Amino acid sequence: MAQRQGKYTILLPTEPVIIGSAAVGTKKESEGPLGSELSFVFSDETAGESSWERSESTLHKEAITRAVADAKLTQGDIDALFAGDLLNQCTGTTFGVRDLNIPICGMYGACSTMALTLATAAIMTDCGAVRKSVASTSSHFCSAEKQFRMPLEYGGQRSPTAQWTASASGAAVVSADGDGPYISAAIIGRITDYGIKDANNMGAAMAPAACNTICDFLNDTGTIPSDYDMILTGDLGAVGAELLCELTVKEHNIDISTVHADCGLMLYDRKTQDVHAGGSGCGCSAAVICSYIMKRLRKGTLKKVLFVGTGALMSAVSSLQGESIPSVAHGVLLCGR
Amino acid sequence: MAQRQGKYTILLPTEPVIIGSAAVGTKKESEGPLGSELSFVFSDETAGESSWERSESTLHKEAITRAVADAKLTQGDIDALFAGDLLNQCTGTTFGVRDLNIPICGMYGACSTMALTLATAAIMTDCGAVRKSVASTSSHFCSAEKQFRMPLEYGGQRSPTAQWTASASGAAVVSADGDGPYISAAIIGRITDYGIKDANNMGAAMAPAACNTICDFLNDTGTIPSDYDMILTGDLGAVGAELLCELTVKEHNIDISTVHADCGLMLYDRKTQDVHAGGSGCGCSAAVICSYIMKRLRKGTLKKVLFVGTGALMSAVSSLQGESIPSVAHGVLLCGR
Repeated sequence: MAQRQGKYTILLPTEPVIIGSAAVGTKKESEGPLGSELSFVFSDETAGESSWERSESTLHKEAITRAVADAKLTQGDIDALFAGDLLNQCTGTTFGVRDLNIPICGMYGACSTMALTLATAAIMTDCGAVRKSVASTSSHFCSAEKQFRMPLEYGGQRSPTAQWTASASGAAVVSADGDGPYISAAIIGRITDYGIKDANNMGAAMAPAACNTICDFLNDTGTIPSDYDMILTGDLGAVGAELLCELTVKEHNIDISTVHADCGLMLYDRKTQDVHAGGSGCGCSAAVICSYIMKRLRKGTLKKVLFVGTGALMSAVSSLQGESIPSVAHGVLLCGR
Repeated sequence: MAQRQGKYTILLPTEPVIIGSAAVGTKKESEGPLGSELSFVFSDETAGESSWERSESTLHKEAITRAVADAKLTQGDIDALFAGDLLNQCTGTTFGVRDLNIPICGMYGACSTMALTLATAAIMTDCGAVRKSVASTSSHFCSAEKQFRMPLEYGGQRSPTAQWTASASGAAVVSADGDGPYISAAIIGRITDYGIKDANNMGAAMAPAACNTICDFLNDTGTIPSDYDMILTGDLGAVGAELLCELTVKEHNIDISTVHADCGLMLYDRKTQDVHAGGSGCGCSAAVICSYIMKRLRKGTLKKVLFVGTGALMSAVSSLQGESIPSVAHGVLLCGR
């Protein structure tokens, strides 16, 4: 039975376990620092499909299928999928999973979605609504560029603050029992909008949301940054990560810089891979969490990781209409044994 | 603490209460059979805004604000919003609620979203993760036509099987305690895809999903249609409703026709309002549930309503790519005292 602590934090006393996980990517992701951590790599961005949207769905299905196998389960054992992605109407997810015959709870939090699906899966497991479920997300560079910015064929220049949407997917199997890393708390974020309108600088738009959620969690739980091995944001990139560390000091007098890391700065090598401010897309943090982080939580080399996914909640239409970018950040506390 | 019954159904023994609700619409909705049941009516589809997307956000915010007031609460009392809509990246929701400073769990289930948000809010209330929350959705005829079909200015003909997206929003406040109608069970649906490709005949695409979820629920709970005052689908329209009643008999030998009703056939008068096969859009079932149904559950003239929201999970892109329409249906059992 979940318990609330402070104004925003939800404690999960049964500590739902992540009994399996998988992360998939394409050639570009395999060439980054975490390439060897991925469960499977597609040789190119098409993943053998005839449209970028289908390619993304194929990545998503592959991650879920591999995570279920990693947990030594079959699809019939899974009570629910908690899943979403960046594509209009979340079709990256729905077309990927439509043949799996598993109940699906569709979620949207832009690049914060992996934290949101993990949080929801963990809460619903804690309370007995589901016994075994999968939290997953995907993104794809080519489908995202086409939808949010320009078709690749246009050959537009990317600005230095822009981030590179990962062509990747991650999935985690959450269970009421079993061995493995566990989720001991969750926090659902509020929308923050500081009036940033540049859709090529989403790190700056999302940093204030990350700041709020991290500081809310620390305040609610009476903890300080050094209580964590890592406070890991999903996908602020270089611009947003720097802003976040400044903001937490300025607005809350909390310095997270010594334990802060960002999934967008981990998946690619910015010096050699031409990703500008870093990686992004829900698949970025999903892939980092479901490979590198999960392996270290399993080994015990990481014990406490506060993972805070960050999402920029604009659409191509809202940006063209001159709207600013509302942002959100959701969090889960991931623990190793 | 939630309990699973059968393969798909989630029982909620604490019976989370709906302590307030509100439904808003525009002039067209006010001229339908349920016009007098709405909490507030905007005099035209613009709702005083300069874009259709902003109009939808304004409807959504109005519904939430009025539902919270109906529950005699203020925004600060609400632990979370469970909300979503049909617009790309769910901006109908996020831009509507961005000033409310309430944690938001974004959800996507196309026109099934009101059932999905009610189910999630109820489960999370049952387990103590939230104490008071809001489940809400919105849709808007003009923003939906622009996004999914053609801009209104094009003046395209609508086919006889097409449904009319409601310009409406509904919100319900779900609470761990208090008086009012309550939610005693929920079911998360599986994706069903019978290969229907006509995006102007979504009733036919969604009927098989509704059939699965309704029959799963009846099988899991060992109940029959006559145990319910109403089995209410959200938005199959005339074509889909007829197909559903045929399908449940043909595939499961269950006849629901005597207790079946459909929100898409309740919100408008098809004879006089030119809505072709009926209403649709997440705002349609949200408005019907949060006005007409909720008032009768409060009075006790309805005691047991199995509400099954139905969603067609395509995007404009997937339809243009020749894909069929995956569909889903989620359900909640709404009870009057």
